[in-house]
Amino acid sequence: MAGWDTATNMRLKLPLTCFILEIIIIILFGVLVQYDKETDAKKWHLEKKSENKSDYENDFYYRYPSFQDVHVMIFIGFGFLMTFLQRYGFGSVAFNFLISAFALQWATLMQGFLHGLHDGKIDIGVESMINADFCTGSVLISFGAVLGKTSPVQLLFMALFEVTLFAVNEFILLSVLDAKDAGGSMTIHTFGAYFGLMVARVLYRPNLDKSKQRNCSVYHSDMFAMIGTLYLWMFWPSFNSAITAHGDDQHRTAMNTYYSLAACTLSTFAMSSLTAHDGKLDMVHIQNAALAGGVAAGTAGEMMLTPVGSMIVGFLAGIISVLGFKYLTPILEEKLKIQDTCGVHNLHGMPGVLGAIVGAVTASLASREVYGDGLEDVFPEIAKGHLSASTQGFRQAISLGVTLGIALLGGIVVGFILKLPVCGAPSDAICFEDNIYWEVPEDSPSHGDQLASVRTEESEKLNS
Amino acid sequence: MAGWDTATNMRLKLPLTCFILEIIIIILFGVLVQYDKETDAKKWHLEKKSENKSDYENDFYYRYPSFQDVHVMIFIGFGFLMTFLQRYGFGSVAFNFLISAFALQWATLMQGFLHGLHDGKIDIGVESMINADFCTGSVLISFGAVLGKTSPVQLLFMALFEVTLFAVNEFILLSVLDAKDAGGSMTIHTFGAYFGLMVARVLYRPNLDKSKQRNCSVYHSDMFAMIGTLYLWMFWPSFNSAITAHGDDQHRTAMNTYYSLAACTLSTFAMSSLTAHDGKLDMVHIQNAALAGGVAAGTAGEMMLTPVGSMIVGFLAGIISVLGFKYLTPILEEKLKIQDTCGVHNLHGMPGVLGAIVGAVTASLASREVYGDGLEDVFPEIAKGHLSASTQGFRQAISLGVTLGIALLGGIVVGFILKLPVCGAPSDAICFEDNIYWEVPEDSPSHGDQLASVRTEESEKLNS
Amino acid sequence: MAGWDTATNMRLKLPLTCFILEIIIIILFGVLVQYDKETDAKKWHLEKKSENKSDYENDFYYRYPSFQDVHVMIFIGFGFLMTFLQRYGFGSVAFNFLISAFALQWATLMQGFLHGLHDGKIDIGVESMINADFCTGSVLISFGAVLGKTSPVQLLFMALFEVTLFAVNEFILLSVLDAKDAGGSMTIHTFGAYFGLMVARVLYRPNLDKSKQRNCSVYHSDMFAMIGTLYLWMFWPSFNSAITAHGDDQHRTAMNTYYSLAACTLSTFAMSSLTAHDGKLDMVHIQNAALAGGVAAGTAGEMMLTPVGSMIVGFLAGIISVLGFKYLTPILEEKLKIQDTCGVHNLHGMPGVLGAIVGAVTASLASREVYGDGLEDVFPEIAKGHLSASTQGFRQAISLGVTLGIALLGGIVVGFILKLPVCGAPSDAICFEDNIYWEVPEDSPSHGDQLASVRTEESEKLNS
Repeated sequence: MAGWDTATNMRLKLPLTCFILEIIIIILFGVLVQYDKETDAKKWHLEKKSENKSDYENDFYYRYPSFQDVHVMIFIGFGFLMTFLQRYGFGSVAFNFLISAFALQWATLMQGFLHGLHDGKIDIGVESMINADFCTGSVLISFGAVLGKTSPVQLLFMALFEVTLFAVNEFILLSVLDAKDAGGSMTIHTFGAYFGLMVARVLYRPNLDKSKQRNCSVYHSDMFAMIGTLYLWMFWPSFNSAITAHGDDQHRTAMNTYYSLAACTLSTFAMSSLTAHDGKLDMVHIQNAALAGGVAAGTAGEMMLTPVGSMIVGFLAGIISVLGFKYLTPILEEKLKIQDTCGVHNLHGMPGVLGAIVGAVTASLASREVYGDGLEDVFPEIAKGHLSASTQGFRQAISLGVTLGIALLGGIVVGFILKLPVCGAPSDAICFEDNIYWEVPEDSPSHGDQLASVRTEESEKLNS
Repeated sequence: MAGWDTATNMRLKLPLTCFILEIIIIILFGVLVQYDKETDAKKWHLEKKSENKSDYENDFYYRYPSFQDVHVMIFIGFGFLMTFLQRYGFGSVAFNFLISAFALQWATLMQGFLHGLHDGKIDIGVESMINADFCTGSVLISFGAVLGKTSPVQLLFMALFEVTLFAVNEFILLSVLDAKDAGGSMTIHTFGAYFGLMVARVLYRPNLDKSKQRNCSVYHSDMFAMIGTLYLWMFWPSFNSAITAHGDDQHRTAMNTYYSLAACTLSTFAMSSLTAHDGKLDMVHIQNAALAGGVAAGTAGEMMLTPVGSMIVGFLAGIISVLGFKYLTPILEEKLKIQDTCGVHNLHGMPGVLGAIVGAVTASLASREVYGDGLEDVFPEIAKGHLSASTQGFRQAISLGVTLGIALLGGIVVGFILKLPVCGAPSDAICFEDNIYWEVPEDSPSHGDQLASVRTEESEKLNS
Repeated sequence: MAGWDTATNMRLKLPLTCFILEIIIIILFGVLVQYDKETDAKKWHLEKKSENKSDYENDFYYRYPSFQDVHVMIFIGFGFLMTFLQRYGFGSVAFNFLISAFALQWATLMQGFLHGLHDGKIDIGVESMINADFCTGSVLISFGAVLGKTSPVQLLFMALFEVTLFAVNEFILLSVLDAKDAGGSMTIHTFGAYFGLMVARVLYRPNLDKSKQRNCSVYHSDMFAMIGTLYLWMFWPSFNSAITAHGDDQHRTAMNTYYSLAACTLSTFAMSSLTAHDGKLDMVHIQNAALAGGVAAGTAGEMMLTPVGSMIVGFLAGIISVLGFKYLTPILEEKLKIQDTCGVHNLHGMPGVLGAIVGAVTASLASREVYGDGLEDVFPEIAKGHLSASTQGFRQAISLGVTLGIALLGGIVVGFILKLPVCGAPSDAICFEDNIYWEVPEDSPSHGDQLASVRTEESEKLNS
C-alpha cells in the first residue's frame, strides 16, 4: 500500500514544479513583458491624441467579449467535457485548471518571443490573451488523450514543451508560410491531437484493463460533461472569429461556424443511432462528435465558404467523428497501442485534418470577384499580388504537413521525457482515480471497495 | 421485453429523419441563402466605402454579445431547466440540443421566406441568427409540455411544423398588424406554451401514473435544473433587448427586464412558502416561477414602462405563476386532460398573456411627450402618424388573440400528426426514462429495479 | 420533532418579509427612481441631437457585456461556490438567488441616495446596475461566513442592513476620501468578509459539532462548487474592470486581473499539496484560494501595476489564502469563536487587506511620467494637483481602516439583530441541512438516516 503512495506522492514534486515554473515566468515577465499601446495609460493617450481616436475605439471593446467566450471554452468547456469519467472529476476539471493557468502564462512568453517583440519587449493586450488561450486549448486537447493516466507534474511538463513547440509551428505556418488558420484547424486541433496521441503512444500501458472499471461514466458524470460540450458548442463561433479581422470577417466567421455546428449536430445524432445495434444514442458521441463541426470550420471559417458550404463541412465532420469513435478508437488501441482516453483523434484529429483540407481548397478558389476589397483582410498576400490563389492553397496544404510532422515528432520526444519516474505517474491499476492525487470525500459506495481492492493488489505485488 | 424495444427502436427512424431533414435544409440553403451585407466580404467593403463606415460599425459588435447570451439560454438555460427529472437528464439536455440545432436552421429558412427575402434570396447575419434562436425558444417551450413522453422523431416533427407556424404568426403580428413584441411575450411564450399544451392534450396518456415514480426529481437533478434557471434569469435582459433598436431601446429593455425579474424572485419565494402547509420552499417554484418576470416583460420591456412599472409586472407574474403551479396544474391534468410536464402554462402561458396585456396597455399610452424622438424607434407607425396610440394598443390586443388562435389550432393538428405510430413514442409505463433512447450507465441503484419492473410488466402484457 | 418545525417554520415569516420589503422597494422606486439619460427615450434622443452622438455611443455597448459577466459571478459564481456542502445545495444556490434579487434592488436605492441623486431623483442605467451587483457581492461574501446556520429571514435582514452600511462606507471612501477602489478590494471584499465574520461571531453556536457530519462535501457537491469557482475565476477580469474609465483603463484592469489569477492558481496548487502530509490536493483550496488573486487585484488593478506586479500580487495572495484555510480557520473557530463556514476570511478578508495595501503603495507611486495623460482617468485628484501621490496613497490606507471599522462594528450590531428569535434560525443540531426550509426529494441514502437521528436527538431533548 505504501508503495504507490510513495511513487505518486506529490508533496515535494508538485510544489517544487509549480514554484519553479511560476518564478521563472515572473522573472521573464519582469524583464521582457510590457503593456501594449492599448493597455498602457501613457501610450494609449498619446495614440488617442496623435490619431484622433476615441476611447470607444480601444480594441478591448471589439475583442474582449470574444476573449471571454474563448476563456469559458478553455476552463468550463474543456474542463467539464472531461469530467465524464466516474472517479476522475476532480482531476479533469482541476488539472485542466492548473495546466491552463500555467500554459497561458508560458504561451504569452513563447508566442511573444516569436511574433510579439517590439524593441526587445513583448507587448501584451487582449489579442495576446486570446492567442495564449488558443495555445492553451491545444495543450488541453493533448490532455484529453492522456486523461486519467498522468500525474499533475507530467501534465505541467507536457504543457511546458507543447506550448513551446506550438509557438514554433504557429510561427512557421503564419509567418513563414503565410498560411491562414484563424480558428486553428491546423495549429490548435491537428497539432494538439497528434501531439497528444504520440505522447499516449509512448506512455502506452499494457495493463490498463486493470483500471477499466473506472474508465467509463456514471449518470451524473455524463451530465457534467454535457455542460462542457454545450459551452464549447455555443461559443465555438466566438473561438473561430476571435482573432480574425474586424468587420465582416469576424461576423462571417462566427456565422459559418454556427451553421457548421448545427449541421454537425444532426449528422452526429443520426450516426450515433445508426451505428448502435438497438438504435440507442451514445452520450460519448453527443458530447464529442457534435463539436467536430467547429473544428472543421477552423481554417475556412473566415473565408467565403458560404453558409451551405459550412453546413456540408459540419455535416461530414459529424459523420467522420462518430465513425471514428465507433470503429477507429478500438483499432488505435489494439493495433497501434494508442490509448486515447477522450477520443481526441475523432474530435480534433480527423476533423482538424478535414478543416485543413477544406481551408486549402477554399483558399485556392479565392478571387477579387468574390471577396471584393475584403480580399485584403482575408488573403493579404493574394491581394498584394505576392501569391496566387493556388499557391496560397498549396501553402495551406504544406502547413498541414508541417503541423503533422512537428506534432508527431514532438509528441514522441515529449512522451519519453514524461516517462521519467520522477514524474510520479500512477500505476496501471490505479488510473482514472482521483484518490491518488486528491483528498476525496468518502461518499461513493463503489469508491471504498475499488480502492481497497487496488490497495490489496498493490500490496500483494509489493510483498511478492 | 422485446415489445417496447421494437416500437421505440430508433435505429432507422431517427437517422432517416435527421438525414432527410438536414439534406433538405442544405439544398434549400444552397439555392436560397446568402451572406447579408454585413457578413459578405465584397458587399461590406462596398458599403463601407459608399457610406464612409468603419469596421467598428459592423452590426456584429452591437448584436453578437446579446446573441451569445440568447444562445446560452437556448442550449444551457432551457436544456438544464428540464433536467430536473431523475431519469431523464440525457433526454432533457440532449434532445433539447438536437431539436434546437434543427430548429435554428429551419427557422432561418421559414423566417427568411416571410421577411428576409431580397431579390429572391434570404440574407443572413447576426440578426437572423437571433431571430432563429427566438423561434427555437418557442419550440423548446412546447417541448417542456411533452417532456419525457415523446421520441426524438416526434420532437423533430413537432419542431418542423411549429417553426413554420411560428414564422406565419410572427409575420402576421409584426408585418401585417404592426404589433411590437421584441421579447416575444406573444410570439414566443404565449405561442409556444399554448401550442405545446394542445399537443400534450392530443397526446393525452390515460395510464401515465404507471410512470409517476420517475416523474419527479432527485437532489442532484434539482441542482442541475438550477443551472438552467439561473442562466435564463441572468440573460433574460439580453433576450428581451436582443433585437430592439440600438441605443436607448436596448439599454432600457435590458434594465426593465432586470427589475421585473428581481421583483418576481421575491414574490416567488414568498408565494412558495405561503402556499406550503409547513412553509417549506418548493424547488419547482424557484426553478420556474422566478422566471415569469422575464416573460411578462417581453412585450412592454422596450417601452417606457418605467422601472417601477417593470417591478409591478414582475411581482404579479411571480404570484400568478406560483399559484398556477400549485392549483391550476392539477386541474389542467384532471379536468382538461393536459399533462404539462414542466408546467409551461405557469411559466410561459399565463405570464405571456399578462405580458401581452401589459404591452397593449403601455402601447395605448404612448405619446411624443414621453418618448420624444425615441417614438420613431419604438412605435414607428405612431411616430409617422399612421396609427394612433390607442389603435396600436388595440392591434397589440388583436395580436394576442391571433397568437392564441394559431397556437391552439396548430397544436391540435400537429398533435394528431405526432400520434402516428411510426414516430416511436414510449408506452405509458416507460415515460420519463432515458433508457428507452439512450445507452445509460448502470450506476443508479434505483435504475436497475425500475427498469426490471417495467420490463416485467411489459413482457407480461405481451404474454397476456 | 415538532419542536424545531415550529421554530423554523417560515410559512408566515418569509412571505411577510418578502412582501413588505418588495412593496417598500416598489413605493420608493415609484417616488424616486427614473431612467437616466442613456435609457430614457426622450432624454437620449435629446442628448444625441445636442452632442451629435450616434446610438453606438450609448454606454450600453461599453458596459453591458461586463455587467453580464458580473451578473454571472453573483448568481452562478457565488451561488455554486457555496454548494460544496453535501446537504445544503438548495439553500446555497437558492438563498443566494433570493438575497441577491433583494439586495440589488435595495442597493439601487441606497447607492442612489448617496451618489446618484439628480434633482431629487435617482437616475439609473447600466452603471448603477453594475454597482448594485457589486454591493450584492459584498452581502454574498458575508453569507459565506454564516452559510448553513441561518434562516432566509435572517439573510434578508442581514442584506437589508449590510447594503445600507456598504453604501455609507463606499460613499466615505469614494466621495469623501477620493480613494480609488474600482474592483472593491476594500469596499466589497474586506467589508463583506469582516462584516460577515462579526455576524458569525455574534451568532456563535457552541454545539455546532452536532451538525459536523453535514459540514463537509460529497463528490458531486464538490463538482458543483467548481462551476462556481471557475466562473468567478474567468470573469474576475470583467468584475475589476466593469466600472473603470473607458479605453486603456478597462483594458489594463482586465489584463492585470487575468495575470494575477493565473499566478495565484499555481501558488494555490503548490501550497495545497505542500501543506498536506501525503501531498494530496484539497478541493477546498482549489475552489477558494485560487480566486484570491482576483480579490488582491481589486484596488490596484486599474493602476499601472505592470503585468509582473500583478503576478507577484496574485502569487502571494494564493499562498496567504491556503495558509489561512489550513492554519488560521481552526484558530478563528477555537480561539475567537468565529465559525466561518466558507472560509471567507481566507478568500476575501486577508486578500482584500493585501489588495488595499498594494493599492495604497501603487497609488503613492503614481506620476505623470508613468501614466501620461491617463493620470486624469486613474487619479483625477492627482492630475488636477489637488492631491500628491503620497497623499493619495495615505488616503487609500485610511480607507482600509475606515472599512474595517464600519465592517466590524456594523457586523456586531447586525449580528445581535439577527439573534432575535423571530428570525427562525435552525438549532445547532440541524445546521447545514436543506430539509429545514425546503421540500427535499428523498433520494439520498444518508439523508433519511441523518434526519432520523437528528429528529430522535431533538425529540429526546424535548422529552427531557
